[in-house]
Amino acid sequence: MPRPQRITRIETVMEAVRARITARSYVPGTRLPSVRAQAATLQVSVSTVVEAYARLTAEGLISPRPGAGFHVSGPVAPLALAGMDPPRDRQVDPLWLARQSLEHEPGMLKPGCGWLPEDWMYVEGIRRGLRSAARADAAALADYATPLGLPALRQLLARRLAGYAIDAAPEQIMLTESGSHAVDLICRFLLSPGDTVLVDDPCYFNFLALLKAHRVNVVGIPYTPTGPDVEAFSAALQAHSPRVYITNSGIHNPTGATLSPVTAHRLLSAADSSDLVIIEDDLFADFEHAPAPRLAAFDGLSRVIQVGSFSKTLSASVRCGFIVARGDWIEGLADLKIATSFGGGRLAADILLTALTASGYRRHVEAVRTRLASARDTTLARLAPLGIRPWVVPQAGMLLWCQLPDGVDAANIARRCLAEGIVLAPGNAFSPSLAAAGFLRFNAAQAQDRRVFEVLARAMRG
Amino acid sequence: MPRPQRITRIETVMEAVRARITARSYVPGTRLPSVRAQAATLQVSVSTVVEAYARLTAEGLISPRPGAGFHVSGPVAPLALAGMDPPRDRQVDPLWLARQSLEHEPGMLKPGCGWLPEDWMYVEGIRRGLRSAARADAAALADYATPLGLPALRQLLARRLAGYAIDAAPEQIMLTESGSHAVDLICRFLLSPGDTVLVDDPCYFNFLALLKAHRVNVVGIPYTPTGPDVEAFSAALQAHSPRVYITNSGIHNPTGATLSPVTAHRLLSAADSSDLVIIEDDLFADFEHAPAPRLAAFDGLSRVIQVGSFSKTLSASVRCGFIVARGDWIEGLADLKIATSFGGGRLAADILLTALTASGYRRHVEAVRTRLASARDTTLARLAPLGIRPWVVPQAGMLLWCQLPDGVDAANIARRCLAEGIVLAPGNAFSPSLAAAGFLRFNAAQAQDRRVFEVLARAMRG
Repeated sequence: MPRPQRITRIETVMEAVRARITARSYVPGTRLPSVRAQAATLQVSVSTVVEAYARLTAEGLISPRPGAGFHVSGPVAPLALAGMDPPRDRQVDPLWLARQSLEHEPGMLKPGCGWLPEDWMYVEGIRRGLRSAARADAAALADYATPLGLPALRQLLARRLAGYAIDAAPEQIMLTESGSHAVDLICRFLLSPGDTVLVDDPCYFNFLALLKAHRVNVVGIPYTPTGPDVEAFSAALQAHSPRVYITNSGIHNPTGATLSPVTAHRLLSAADSSDLVIIEDDLFADFEHAPAPRLAAFDGLSRVIQVGSFSKTLSASVRCGFIVARGDWIEGLADLKIATSFGGGRLAADILLTALTASGYRRHVEAVRTRLASARDTTLARLAPLGIRPWVVPQAGMLLWCQLPDGVDAANIARRCLAEGIVLAPGNAFSPSLAAAGFLRFNAAQAQDRRVFEVLARAMRG
Repeated sequence: MPRPQRITRIETVMEAVRARITARSYVPGTRLPSVRAQAATLQVSVSTVVEAYARLTAEGLISPRPGAGFHVSGPVAPLALAGMDPPRDRQVDPLWLARQSLEHEPGMLKPGCGWLPEDWMYVEGIRRGLRSAARADAAALADYATPLGLPALRQLLARRLAGYAIDAAPEQIMLTESGSHAVDLICRFLLSPGDTVLVDDPCYFNFLALLKAHRVNVVGIPYTPTGPDVEAFSAALQAHSPRVYITNSGIHNPTGATLSPVTAHRLLSAADSSDLVIIEDDLFADFEHAPAPRLAAFDGLSRVIQVGSFSKTLSASVRCGFIVARGDWIEGLADLKIATSFGGGRLAADILLTALTASGYRRHVEAVRTRLASARDTTLARLAPLGIRPWVVPQAGMLLWCQLPDGVDAANIARRCLAEGIVLAPGNAFSPSLAAAGFLRFNAAQAQDRRVFEVLARAMRG
C-alpha cells in the first residue's frame, strides 16, 4: 500500500496525462513518454509512473501495446482542425467562415467573402482558354505536367515579377494546384510540429486553419497601416525563434493596407541575423494601381518566398498557383509536390496562359480596378451612417477592414445577419489573439446589394 | 579537469548528438532534448550533458537560444525527401524515377512509367468537356467549388461504387485535386510523425516518397499473387501497432495482381481488433474486365477508405480525385482540404462529368481493355526470349511485374537503357526492403516500340 505522499504523486502523474488527453495534445493512439522519461520530466520516481500508468490503464484511458509502451486509448485519432487555440465560438471559427463562404446557397449575399462575384471575373478569357484547349494536342489534354509546370507560363510570370523588381528565372518558379496549396507546400517544406510561426494580427483567416494542420505555435504580430509592427516583430524573433513569418504584401488581407518601403526595410533588417523564412502571399497583385514594395524584391529572394495565384482576378475554378523561391528550395519543393500530389495537371496552366496573354486581360483588370474604387467608395458611404468606419482607406482592392461603434460585437452582428441570409466576416476570425471583436471585413464588390446595409442596420439595432 | 572516464562519457553524448545530426534525425533548427532529459536518456549525469552541449556549441554544431534550450545550428532546415531509408542508389530512388517519368524529353521511350500514352486516353471526351465548359455559366468558370465538390459528379461516383458493392451516399464522397492529393489528405488526417504505416512490398513507388514527407515508419508486407501475405500482415499488426495500411485493390501496382476474396476476408479479420485504417487506392478500376473484390465493399467503409481518380483512363491533365469514407471522417477531411487548399476548383469536375457521361466513354474503355490485353501479350512475348518472365500474368491493366534472369540487376539495366533514351522502372524503386533487385515493372501500353526490346537486349548483354 503506497504512502499518502506517494498517492499524491501518482495522482499528479495521472492528472498530467489526463490534462493532455483533454487538451488533445495527446490524441488517441499517441504513445506516452516512456516510464523513465515521464519520471524525469515530472521529477518523480519510476515506480510512481509505473503505478500511475497502471491505474490509467485500469481506467481504460491508456493501454499497453506489447513492446511498444503505453498509448492513449480510443479509436484512430484523426486530426481535428475544429477547435482553435484560443477557443472561439463558431461565428469566428476560420473553418466555419470558410465553409459558409464556399457553400452555394441560392439567395445568400456574401459581403464577408474574400473574392469577386463571378461576373467580375475574366470569364471571357477563360472561355477563350477553354476553346483553345479543346483544339490542343493530346499530350496537353491527357498528360501530367512536368515537375515545375508549363514553361511558357513560368516565363510569363518571370516577366511579370520583373515589374515588381523581383529578379527570378523561370527555373525559380514552380506551379502548384493553387495559392493555398503553394503556402501549404512551403510550410511542409520548412516546418516541423511544435515550431513557431509568426502571422499578422489580423491575418487571412485560413492561415490560422492551415497552421493548425501543421501543429505549430502561432504568434500574432500587430498589423499597422504601413505593415507589421516592427518592434513587436523584433521582440517575437527574440522570444520565440520562429521558423516562418507568413504575410501578404501588395494588398494585405484582411486590412487592405499596403506595406511601406520603410517598414519593408526595417522588417528585413530585424530578421537579418535570424534563420527566419518569410512567405509573402501576393494574391491581390493585379488589383494594385501602382505596385507597393515587395519583400521578395527588397530581399532578393534570399529568405523570402513569394506565392501567388490567379484565383482573385481570373478564375478560382481553374486551379493554379505558383511559388517563387531560391533555386535550391525550388528543387526540394518540387520533390515534395511530386511526393504529395504527383505531377500536377497541364490543362489549368494552358487555359490560364491563353487568358493571360489575350489582349483583353489588361483591359479587364483595369476595368475591375476602376469598378472596385467606386465600389469601395459606395460601400464606405453606406457604412458611415451606421457608425462603421474603415481602419484604413485602402489604395486598391476589394477589402475594407472596418471598425464597429464602441461596444458592438461583430460576432453577434454576424450571427443576426446570417439568419437573414447575409454572410459577414467578423474580425476575430482573422485575429490569432481574438483582439478584433469590434471589426468586420467587408468585400466592396460583394456589398453592392442595398439589402446588405438594411439587414446590417437592423442587426445593429439589436 | 574532468577525469578520463568522464571524458569518455562526454564524448559518448557528443557522438550521440552528432550521429543524429548526420542521420538527419536532428535537422538544423531541431531543439535538442533538455540537459536533464538527455542525461536520463543516455544514463549519464546532468553535468556530463552540460559539458557535451558546451563543446558541441564551441564546435558550432549546436547553439543555445535564450530561454529555449539548444538547437542544431545551420540555416533553415527544409524537409529533404531525397535520401530514403534504407539508402538506395539514384536509379531506384522513387523521386528520381517520378521525375524521369514526368520530364518531357522528346524521343525518350518510357516503358517504365505508370500511365497510358496520351493517344490511348479519352482525349475526345476531354475535348467535348472543354467545349461544353466554354458555354457554361460564369459561376462554373470563375467560382470556387463547394466543400465536397460538384454534387452531380459525386452522385455519378456513388452509382459507380454500387457496381463494386460499395454502398456510399454522395455525402460520403469528397472530390480532391488528384488521387495522390486524396491519399495525402487522408495521411495528414490520420498520421502523426513517428507512426507506423504498412505498405505492400513491392508497392506503388510514390507511396514511399509520400510517407517520407509524413515522417512515419514504413513496414513492408510481402505481396503474393492473391494479395498481401496475411500472416506477415498479422505479425506486423502485433509487432508495430500500425495506424494505416495503404494498398491498391482492383489492380495492384506494380505487380498487376488481383486481391482474392479469401485474402480480403482474412486480411480484414486479422485487422478486426486493431485500430488500423486501410487506404485502398483504386485508381485502375476502369481497366478491369470483371471487378475484383474491394476491401471497402467487404468492410462496409468502416475502417477502409477508398481513393480513386480519373488520371489513368480519362486524363492526368484535368486534375480530379476522390475519397470515399465514413461520413464523420469526410467532415474532418473536408476541413483539412479547406485549410490546406481552400475550396478546390469546379472546372475540372465539370469537364470530367461531361466526358464520363458521354456515350463514348464506355466504348473507349472497352477498346482500351482489349488493346491492353493484346499489348500485354505482345510485351510478354518480346520479353520471353530475353529470359524476362512475368511474376504473375495480370487479368487486366497495363502493368507487368517481371523477373530478370538470375543475377541480373535491374538498376544496372535501367542505367544502361536510360543512356539510350529508354526510361525503365527497376524493382527496388517499389520495394521498401530493397528486395526486388531482380525485377522490372513494364507498362505494356508504353512498350509497343520495338526499340525498347532491342536496347534492353543490348543492356542485358552488358
